[in-house]
Amino acid sequence: SSSTTPIKATLFPGDGIGPEIAESVKQVFTAADVAIEWDEHFVGTEIDPRTNSFLTWESLQSVLDRKVGLKGPMATPIGKGHRSLNLTLRKELNLYANVRPCYSLPGYKTRYDDVDLITIRENTEGEYSGLEHQVVKGVVESLKIITRKASMRVAEYAFLYAKTHGRKKVSAIHKANIMQKTDGLFLQCCDEVAEKYPEIEYEQVVIDNCCMMLVKNPALFDVLVMPNLYGDIISDLCAGLVGGLGLTPSCNIGEDGIALAEAVHGSAPDIAGKNLANPTALLLSGVMMLRHLKLNKQAEQIHSAIINTIAEGKYRTADLGGTSTTTDFTKAICDHL
Amino acid sequence: SSSTTPIKATLFPGDGIGPEIAESVKQVFTAADVAIEWDEHFVGTEIDPRTNSFLTWESLQSVLDRKVGLKGPMATPIGKGHRSLNLTLRKELNLYANVRPCYSLPGYKTRYDDVDLITIRENTEGEYSGLEHQVVKGVVESLKIITRKASMRVAEYAFLYAKTHGRKKVSAIHKANIMQKTDGLFLQCCDEVAEKYPEIEYEQVVIDNCCMMLVKNPALFDVLVMPNLYGDIISDLCAGLVGGLGLTPSCNIGEDGIALAEAVHGSAPDIAGKNLANPTALLLSGVMMLRHLKLNKQAEQIHSAIINTIAEGKYRTADLGGTSTTTDFTKAICDHL
Ligand SMILES: CC(C)[C@H](C(=O)O)[C@@H](O)C(=O)O
Ligand SMILES: CC(C)[C@H](C(=O)O)[C@@H](O)C(=O)O
Repeated sequence: SSSTTPIKATLFPGDGIGPEIAESVKQVFTAADVAIEWDEHFVGTEIDPRTNSFLTWESLQSVLDRKVGLKGPMATPIGKGHRSLNLTLRKELNLYANVRPCYSLPGYKTRYDDVDLITIRENTEGEYSGLEHQVVKGVVESLKIITRKASMRVAEYAFLYAKTHGRKKVSAIHKANIMQKTDGLFLQCCDEVAEKYPEIEYEQVVIDNCCMMLVKNPALFDVLVMPNLYGDIISDLCAGLVGGLGLTPSCNIGEDGIALAEAVHGSAPDIAGKNLANPTALLLSGVMMLRHLKLNKQAEQIHSAIINTIAEGKYRTADLGGTSTTTDFTKAICDHL
Repeated sequence: SSSTTPIKATLFPGDGIGPEIAESVKQVFTAADVAIEWDEHFVGTEIDPRTNSFLTWESLQSVLDRKVGLKGPMATPIGKGHRSLNLTLRKELNLYANVRPCYSLPGYKTRYDDVDLITIRENTEGEYSGLEHQVVKGVVESLKIITRKASMRVAEYAFLYAKTHGRKKVSAIHKANIMQKTDGLFLQCCDEVAEKYPEIEYEQVVIDNCCMMLVKNPALFDVLVMPNLYGDIISDLCAGLVGGLGLTPSCNIGEDGIALAEAVHGSAPDIAGKNLANPTALLLSGVMMLRHLKLNKQAEQIHSAIINTIAEGKYRTADLGGTSTTTDFTKAICDHL
């Protein structure tokens, strides 16, 4: 086993199936000799006044200190006035870019072959401002906020990502034909950054047309960068092309090198505790975390083991048409290492 | 030929390929003995101060008088401060619901079989308010407006449509987990209307999840009703499932029984005037117009002729992989009548 100083990382197992799939990650990481010390945090049972949410202050500090973490699904408690836990994390930790790769898993057939897309979503503003009010009875409005600061940093992240990952093209997704000022500012920032990367092809694509082209021919796209809500929509669409959110990882990028990898599927309360959950999205998110930490060898080992287990098809969870338990599937991955 | 008093309808041939595909509609309607008197209007070359757009006042009056029309693609002239012609029509004529059916065309293969979806889009407000401003340099905001009035009438239209068209389910698409007040009001209106239609199944679906499920399994959906921007996005996604906007019709519904059918694809300036355009979307929109006028026999005749021509595959325009000209394809449809 590895003799290097263990990496300290925050782990949010999350709700529902979260603890089971987090357990799967821990086992696979251990089997792959990843020297890691998890600082585990659970969602609180009461509002922490310092975060105004069920997230504890300590858990946020843990990520800020360790600068790297992995997060399972968090269900926001029902009831008015509670900020979504996912959003609280993104805003409090200033996680400005959400990277969601979607690629076809060999051996797992969908209608689409060879999908290979990277969605990079602005993660802090836009329609997620939380600013809404009733103007008069029966008339409500919500504010979409676009800033030059947030648009520039996500655009810069997208082009840097494209360059460092050998990608050929960045598409900026927008609806500036309708929202000329907000989406117009976003596009202007992308245009500016694009000029600094003459080797990367660059295009602007209107969101409606983008969705049509994605379902017709996803190979037209490569890296896609966009404001918050469009990123929410398009990343789910892309996930659907390759099988759904149970198979696609994500990683949130913040200032000062912070990275919080995250499985963005739901907490699936109906199957929680039944050893039926598919840990793939959280495992692949863990791989993104390892790559962020430049632990490329172990990242690729684990990645191959997951891919090969699914491709082989002998051990698959119910969502992929198999009958394996979470633990059997996890064991199969460990055996493939 | 028919001896009934001709129906008076407005025709906007539109820009680019518009006049060619409008000509195709006129020929097919004539061949099918539709007694119609077209009042043709072109987009002006200067701003009409009474509409603050390139649309003439007379053309709007024509639709208001005749209450029924057909519209080709309109390209909004580039330059700041011009309202989109499409939007001007929707707003000035108070076209509150945009109905976009998407169904698989027999014989035209895509990745999806047996798609049969109806998108019903709120057409006047939401993110299309046009209200945007710069707060301070580098910070811009746009207002999304949701009203009870517009939400109720589109929800009522959607359920009435479902009932009168033998549909089983209405899905209200939203992002109320983020926009609790605006999308929340929209949902509340859908909930209220749903109660009056116990025979129609009703569900709420978050837009990101909806897009994922649409690409995974479109058969999960039937009629979808939603605020403006989501309708813009999802109707294009659905069109993509069956081949694209060149094959899908739409119809805008206004107060007082006004209906303006519309091909929502672009004006394709690159192929304009070359006799290469596919008139299918405008023809099928014309069929929607005839159904609205209760000319069901002729609507079904024309519909079958279009479907059969495409299914037969001998005459197809270039966008469908064929080599037919617009006029040859049109003639083939007339021959199928
Ligand atoms: C759960 C929800 C608030 C969240 C979002 O809208 O961003 C989710 O859909 C996601 O994509 O991470
Ligand atoms: C051209 C554009 C303004 C329009 C819209 O956004 O509504 C188009 O995409 C549509 O769907 O009709």
